[in-house]
Amino acid sequence: MDDMTVPAAASAETLRNMHAYWRAANYLSVGQIYLLDNPMLRQPLTQAHVKPRLLGHWGTTPGLNFIYVHLNRVILAHDLSVLYVTGPGHGGPGLVANAYLEDTYSEVYPDIAQDAEGVRRLFKQFSFPGGIPSHVSAETPGSIHEGGELGYSLSHAFGAAFDNPDLIVACVVGDGEAETGALATSWHSNKFLNPVHDGAVLPILHLNGYKIAGPTVLARIPRAELAALMTGYGYEPFFVEGDDPDAMHRLMADTLDLVVQRIGAIQRDARANGFTERPRWPMIVLRSPKGWTGPRTVDGKPSEGTFRAHQVPIADMHKPGHLALLEQWMHSYAPDELFDADGKLIAPLRALAPAGARRMSANPVANGGALLRDLVLPDVHEFAVDVAAPGATLAESTRVQGEYLRAVMQQNMSNFRIFSPDETASNRWAAVFEASARCSTAEILPGDEDVAADGRVMEMLSEHQCEGWLEGYLLTGRHGMFSCYEAFIHIVDSMFNQHAKWLKSANDIAWRAPIASLNYLLSSHVWRQDHNGASHQDPGFIDHVLNKKAEIVRVYLPPDANTLLAVTDHCLRSRDKINVIVAGKHPEAQWLDIDAAIAHCRAGIGVWEWASNDRDDDVDVVLACAGDVPTLEALAAVQMLREHFPTLSVRLVNVVDLMTLQPAHVHPHGLDEAQFDTMFTTDKPVIFAYHGYPSLIHRLTYRRANHANIHVHGFREEGTTTTPFDMVVLNQVDRFHLFAAAVERVPKLQPVRQAALQFAQDSLAAHSAYIREHGIDMPSILDWTWNTGAPNNAH
Amino acid sequence: MDDMTVPAAASAETLRNMHAYWRAANYLSVGQIYLLDNPMLRQPLTQAHVKPRLLGHWGTTPGLNFIYVHLNRVILAHDLSVLYVTGPGHGGPGLVANAYLEDTYSEVYPDIAQDAEGVRRLFKQFSFPGGIPSHVSAETPGSIHEGGELGYSLSHAFGAAFDNPDLIVACVVGDGEAETGALATSWHSNKFLNPVHDGAVLPILHLNGYKIAGPTVLARIPRAELAALMTGYGYEPFFVEGDDPDAMHRLMADTLDLVVQRIGAIQRDARANGFTERPRWPMIVLRSPKGWTGPRTVDGKPSEGTFRAHQVPIADMHKPGHLALLEQWMHSYAPDELFDADGKLIAPLRALAPAGARRMSANPVANGGALLRDLVLPDVHEFAVDVAAPGATLAESTRVQGEYLRAVMQQNMSNFRIFSPDETASNRWAAVFEASARCSTAEILPGDEDVAADGRVMEMLSEHQCEGWLEGYLLTGRHGMFSCYEAFIHIVDSMFNQHAKWLKSANDIAWRAPIASLNYLLSSHVWRQDHNGASHQDPGFIDHVLNKKAEIVRVYLPPDANTLLAVTDHCLRSRDKINVIVAGKHPEAQWLDIDAAIAHCRAGIGVWEWASNDRDDDVDVVLACAGDVPTLEALAAVQMLREHFPTLSVRLVNVVDLMTLQPAHVHPHGLDEAQFDTMFTTDKPVIFAYHGYPSLIHRLTYRRANHANIHVHGFREEGTTTTPFDMVVLNQVDRFHLFAAAVERVPKLQPVRQAALQFAQDSLAAHSAYIREHGIDMPSILDWTWNTGAPNNAH
Repeated sequence: MDDMTVPAAASAETLRNMHAYWRAANYLSVGQIYLLDNPMLRQPLTQAHVKPRLLGHWGTTPGLNFIYVHLNRVILAHDLSVLYVTGPGHGGPGLVANAYLEDTYSEVYPDIAQDAEGVRRLFKQFSFPGGIPSHVSAETPGSIHEGGELGYSLSHAFGAAFDNPDLIVACVVGDGEAETGALATSWHSNKFLNPVHDGAVLPILHLNGYKIAGPTVLARIPRAELAALMTGYGYEPFFVEGDDPDAMHRLMADTLDLVVQRIGAIQRDARANGFTERPRWPMIVLRSPKGWTGPRTVDGKPSEGTFRAHQVPIADMHKPGHLALLEQWMHSYAPDELFDADGKLIAPLRALAPAGARRMSANPVANGGALLRDLVLPDVHEFAVDVAAPGATLAESTRVQGEYLRAVMQQNMSNFRIFSPDETASNRWAAVFEASARCSTAEILPGDEDVAADGRVMEMLSEHQCEGWLEGYLLTGRHGMFSCYEAFIHIVDSMFNQHAKWLKSANDIAWRAPIASLNYLLSSHVWRQDHNGASHQDPGFIDHVLNKKAEIVRVYLPPDANTLLAVTDHCLRSRDKINVIVAGKHPEAQWLDIDAAIAHCRAGIGVWEWASNDRDDDVDVVLACAGDVPTLEALAAVQMLREHFPTLSVRLVNVVDLMTLQPAHVHPHGLDEAQFDTMFTTDKPVIFAYHGYPSLIHRLTYRRANHANIHVHGFREEGTTTTPFDMVVLNQVDRFHLFAAAVERVPKLQPVRQAALQFAQDSLAAHSAYIREHGIDMPSILDWTWNTGAPNNAH
Repeated sequence: MDDMTVPAAASAETLRNMHAYWRAANYLSVGQIYLLDNPMLRQPLTQAHVKPRLLGHWGTTPGLNFIYVHLNRVILAHDLSVLYVTGPGHGGPGLVANAYLEDTYSEVYPDIAQDAEGVRRLFKQFSFPGGIPSHVSAETPGSIHEGGELGYSLSHAFGAAFDNPDLIVACVVGDGEAETGALATSWHSNKFLNPVHDGAVLPILHLNGYKIAGPTVLARIPRAELAALMTGYGYEPFFVEGDDPDAMHRLMADTLDLVVQRIGAIQRDARANGFTERPRWPMIVLRSPKGWTGPRTVDGKPSEGTFRAHQVPIADMHKPGHLALLEQWMHSYAPDELFDADGKLIAPLRALAPAGARRMSANPVANGGALLRDLVLPDVHEFAVDVAAPGATLAESTRVQGEYLRAVMQQNMSNFRIFSPDETASNRWAAVFEASARCSTAEILPGDEDVAADGRVMEMLSEHQCEGWLEGYLLTGRHGMFSCYEAFIHIVDSMFNQHAKWLKSANDIAWRAPIASLNYLLSSHVWRQDHNGASHQDPGFIDHVLNKKAEIVRVYLPPDANTLLAVTDHCLRSRDKINVIVAGKHPEAQWLDIDAAIAHCRAGIGVWEWASNDRDDDVDVVLACAGDVPTLEALAAVQMLREHFPTLSVRLVNVVDLMTLQPAHVHPHGLDEAQFDTMFTTDKPVIFAYHGYPSLIHRLTYRRANHANIHVHGFREEGTTTTPFDMVVLNQVDRFHLFAAAVERVPKLQPVRQAALQFAQDSLAAHSAYIREHGIDMPSILDWTWNTGAPNNAH
C-alpha cells in the first residue's frame, strides 16, 4: 500500500471512462437476466433472443456495479488489496459481470471466453437450468459470501479482516439486510478489530429505498438520525447521495479517496505507535435509486427508483412494447462503444481494472483454501487425563480440552482464533486466556480480567456474530473453533444451513481449494444446566445438522476427556466439514486412557469389553450409549444388571461418532451391515441411552436389521432448574429406567421381572423424595463409581 | 391516566420509603438464592439454613428491583397501567420478590402466604427441585417474557403495546442482551408504533457492565457515542448513572417523572390531532453496579460492580467466613425494619405499591388469555375456489387465503395483525392491503404503495422482529399470523423453541388462561423458489417443530386452496398451539371442492377415492403424498400407473395433518393402529411423496406395522435456481421416479419391470435435455392435467 496521505483526485477523463465501464457492467448484468442470444445486440432484438423464464434481481445491481468500478480506481491508485463482500447478494449478475470484465471469469471457466460467444454463454447460463444461480454464490470468483439469506455480510467482512493486515474488505450492506438482527448488531464488530494486526473493513450502506415491496427503515429516517446511528455505532459516516451519474461519480471518487486516506492514517498510526484507542473507522452511506439506469416507467408505472425495479423490471416480454423497451434500455448503455468487434471490452476500459491478484474477483483471500496453512497441533498425549481404571478418575472434559486449545493457540498465533458468546470461561476453556485474552478495542477497565486489544478470543453476546466472524475467518484460509451453550446454538441454525450449502457447492468447484472445517463445541448441554432452566435445554441442533449432506456434517459425542481430546485433534485437522462436538463441563468419571480413547474415536463406535460380560455368540441384551451423561447412566445400569443377574450376558456399546450408525451407503462413516449386526445383534434387545431426541437414533438406524429391537431413551422435552440426576429421571434416561427397560425385554428375566421392576420403581421414588427434600442428589448417585470387580463372564 | 403535564416531584420521605421497599425486594431476592430456612434471620444463620445447591443470578437483580419500585411510584402518581418486561430474565428472584411484596404471588399461589412461613416457602421453592425456575418464567405473575435466551424483550414489549393504547410497557434491556442481533434491530420498532391507537414502550437500557465474564459493548463506549446511538435509533435518551443509592433515587424519580410526562404529551397530541410524524419516544439509560448492594469483596476480590457478582457472589458456603458474610449482607437490608413480627411487609411500605390490576405483577395483559376475544371469522365457503372436477381449476392457494385473511382483518380491526419480513405481497397475500396497509410511522413517500401509519400489516425485514412482535401480541390476548418464506423461518428456530416451552409451562399453570395459537404460513417453499436458489431451499423447520411436545405443535400441508382455507380457519380458532402451515403460492391444480376440503382437513388424512382404483381387499400399491407439489407428482404417477397397467390396483392417500401419521398414544391427532393399517395396508408397498426431508416420515411412522414397506421420496438437499419440474427431478420426487419406485416394488409388475423402468428413465432424459436447452419445463409437464377418464376399478 503506498502513501495514501495525498489522494490523487480522479480526473474528469478517468470519471468518463469509469462511467463507460459502469455501463459495460450494467449491460452485462441486464443481458444475463434477459438474453439467450444476440448478446451484443447487433441484430434487432426478437422474442427468440429472450429467455423464456426471466429470473434475477436487477434492483440492487447497478449500485453494486457503481461501487465496484470506484473501488477498482482506488485499488489501482494505491495498490490496495480489496475483498468485495456483497451483502445484497441478489445482485449476482453484477458480480459475475465484473468478474467477467476483468477476465477472472474466463480464467476459471474457460468456456466463457472473452468474445461475443463467451458473452452469449455468460448470459445464457445465468439462472438457467444447469447454469449458475442468480445470487452471488460459491461459483462466483472473488466471493466468500452467499447471496441468499441476508444479515451476515459485515460479520463475514470482519472475519475476513482479522489477521489480514494488508486487506481492506469493502462490504456493501443493503438497506433491506440492515433491518435484520444479525446485521444490526454486526456494526459493533469495530470494537473487536485491531488496526495493528487486522485489516480494515469499509462498510458501504447502500440505501436504495425498498425491499421486495415495502420501504426500508434506514432510508426513511432523517439524514441526521442516520448519521447519529452510524456515529453511535462508532463510525465516521460519509454520505454519497444522488441520482445524476456525473455528479455521483465525482462525489463517490472524492469520498473514496478520503476514506482510503483515513484508513491509511489509522493503520500507520497504530502500526507505528501501537494500539492506543479504538479508531473511528470511516463508512459510506450510498443513496442511489433502486434499479438505477433501468427503465423509468414500465406499463405507465414508475420503475427506476421504486420497489418495482427489485427483480425483473420488464417482466412479461409478450406484452406489447416490452421487447422494444428492453432493447432501448440495453442500447442506452451503447454496447458498441464498450465492446470491440469480437465482443471484448475495449482496452482503455480494461485498463481501469486492476490485474492479477489485485482484481477483487481474483483476490486470493476469496479462495481461502489456497492460502490455508495446517495448524501446528500439540500431541494430545501431553494433555491426557490419567485413567488407571475405568471410572477411577474424575475430570471436567472441556477444561482438559481448554488446556489443549491453549497450546493450539500458542502455536498458531496468527491463524487460529476462538469464538464464543461470552461462554469461554463458563464452558471451562479459561486456560486459553493464558495464551491470549478476550479481544476488545473498546474501553478496558482495571477490574477486567483477560481482556486486551490484541486478544484472540472473540467474545460478543451474539451467536450470529461468532458464527459470522468464524465463517469469514475460515473462508479466507484460517482456522477456528466456536464454543456455545448447546441450547443457544439454534440461534444460528439458518447460518449453519447456508455455510453447509456453501461447502456442498464449493466441493463441486474445481478451483476452490478445501478450507478448514467449522468446529463447534456445544457444552453446558441439555443435561447439565444447573444455573438455568427449561429454556436452556434443547439438544436439537444435532437433528438440524443431520438434515444436511452427509459429506459435509459430522457429530461427535465423546464420553470423557480423553475421547474429547482425540475428537478435537481430528476436527482441527479436517477440511470442508462442519464438526459438532457435544461434551459436558462438569466433573465426570473418566473411562478410557488416551490410547484407548484414540483407538475408540478412530473407530467411532465400539464395544467396551471392560464393561461387558457377553460372549460373542451369547448376548442377552445390548446397552448402547452416546453422550457423556447417557454413558454414565448406561454403565450404572449395566453394573446393576450384572449385580442383580450374574448370569446375564450384557454388552455395552459406546458411540462417539453418531454417523457410524447410518448405513455405509448413506454416510462415509457408516458401519457396514455386517459390522453393525455383529455389534448390535440381529435379534437381541438394544437399550440405547442417547444424549438428544430419541427419534434421531431411529432415523439413523431404521434400515438396520435389528431396528425393531432398538429402544431409545433420550431427551423428551422434560426439564426445569433441578438436579442433574432429576433431569435424567424426568426424561427416563437414568440408570433405573434403563435397567427396567432391559429387564422388560430380556426373555430369560421374565420370571423375575416383577421384583426387578419394583426395585427400579422404589429406587426412583426414594431418589425423588430425597431430591425434593434436600435439593441435591442422593449420596448413592453422587458417589457412584464403576465397580470393576463385577463378574466378567468372557474377558 | 391523569394529566401528566405537571409531575409531582417525589418527596424526600417518599424516596426514603422507596429505598426501604427496595431493600425489602433485595432481601427477598438474596433469600431466594440462599436460604432454606430462618427466612427472617431471627436466629443466627447456620449452614442448615442455607441451600446445599446455590443457583440463581444476583447480578442483575438489584437493578431490576430498583426500577420496579420507581415504576410503582409513577403508577400510583398517575394511575398508569404498566407492564414490566424483564429482558435480563435471569433476575427471576427480583420479579418474584416484587410479586410477593404486592400480594399477587400469594393470591395465585395461596400456599405462599404473607407471613414468615410464606417467606420460608418462597425462599425454598426457588431453583429447587419441584419448585420454580431461577428465571422469569410462565410461573411468574406479571410476566409475558421467558428469562432464558436473550434478545427478544423489546420485540415482546412492542408486540404488547400494539393496540393497547392505555398501556405503558417498561422494558428493561440488559447490556448483555443488547449485544444480540434480535435486540439490536428491535430498537427500530419505534417506526411501527402509532401513538394514536398503540400504547407506549419505555426502554430502559440497564448498563451494569458485564456479561457472565466479559465486559459489555455498550458499557464501554463513550457516553456521547451511546447517546448518538440511541438518538440514531430514534429515541430521546435520559441518563441515570451512579452507585450512591440516595442520589440515584432522586435522579431516577425525577427522570421517570419527565419521561412519563413526555409519553403523555406525545399521546395527547396524537390522539387530539391525529398522527402527524413519528414521535421521538423517551428511553432511559440506567448505569448501576452489577450486584449493587451486594458484598463489596469476597475472598479478597472485588464482587459488587464486577462480573463476579453475575450469579451467586458468595458461592461455597463452607469456606471460612462465607456464612458470616452472607448473614452480614442480608442484615444490611435491616429486615426487621421492613417486615413485622409475622414476617409481613410493614404497611407504610405496602402503601408504596399499587393495588389490584394496577400492580405490574397483576396487570391483566400479562395473562392475555383472560382478555382474549374470539376472532369474528368469515365463512370459508365465500372464498372457496370452484372445483367442478379434480384438476379442472388452477388457483394460487395463498392468494385465495389472502382474500380470506382480508375479511378476517376487516372484521377484527383491533385485535388481529399480520406479520411478515416484507413477504406479504410476495407470498400472495396482497388482498389484505385492501383491509389495512403496511404499518410505518417513518417517512412515507408518494410512490409507496399500501403503506400507512395506521397499517396493521407489520413488515420489517427481520424474522426475529416479526416473531417477537407476534408473540408479544398473542401473549397479551390478541390474534395474528406470520407469513414467511419457508427457508428463512429457521432464523427463529430458537424463538419458536422458547415460545413452545412457554406454552407447555403455561398449560400447567391454573391461573394462566389459554391464548391464541401462533400461526405460521410458510410459502415460497422449497419446491417453488423460482427467483432464488439453493440457499432458499430448506423444509427443515417442520423437523425442528416436531421435536417439541405433541400437545403444542401442529403441522399442516394442505394440497390446494380449499384445504388451505379449511386449515386456516381451524388454526385461527385454536388455542395454545403452534400451527405450521406450508402452502405454495404459484398457480396449481385444485383437487377438492370446499366441502370435500373441510371434511378432508377434519380427518387430516384420507384416501382420495376419485384418484384410486383399488378395492379395499385388493391393493397392489399405495401412493401417499403430503404437500402440494408432492400431491401433484403423486397424482401424475398414479395416472401413469393406471394408464400403463390398467389391472393394477392403486390407492392414493393424501395427508394434510402430518400428526395423523404418528401413533395415537404419541400425538392426539394420531391415527390408531387399525385406521392406519386399513389405509396403508400391513404388507403392500407404500410410495410416499413428501414435501420435506424423507427421514421425518420414517420418524413419524416407524412404529407402524407396514413401516418396512414405506418408501419415502422427499427433499434430498439437491437444488439450485432451476425450473419447478427440474427441482422435483433433482430430488427424485417427480412422477417418473415415483412411478419407477412403484413398479420396482409391486410383485405382479416384475415381468414388465424392465420396460417400465426404461420408459421412466427415457422420459427423465427427455425432460432433462429439454429443460437444459429451453430453460423451461416441457409442455407435457406444464399442461398436464388429471385425467378423470382413467379406468376406476372400484368406485
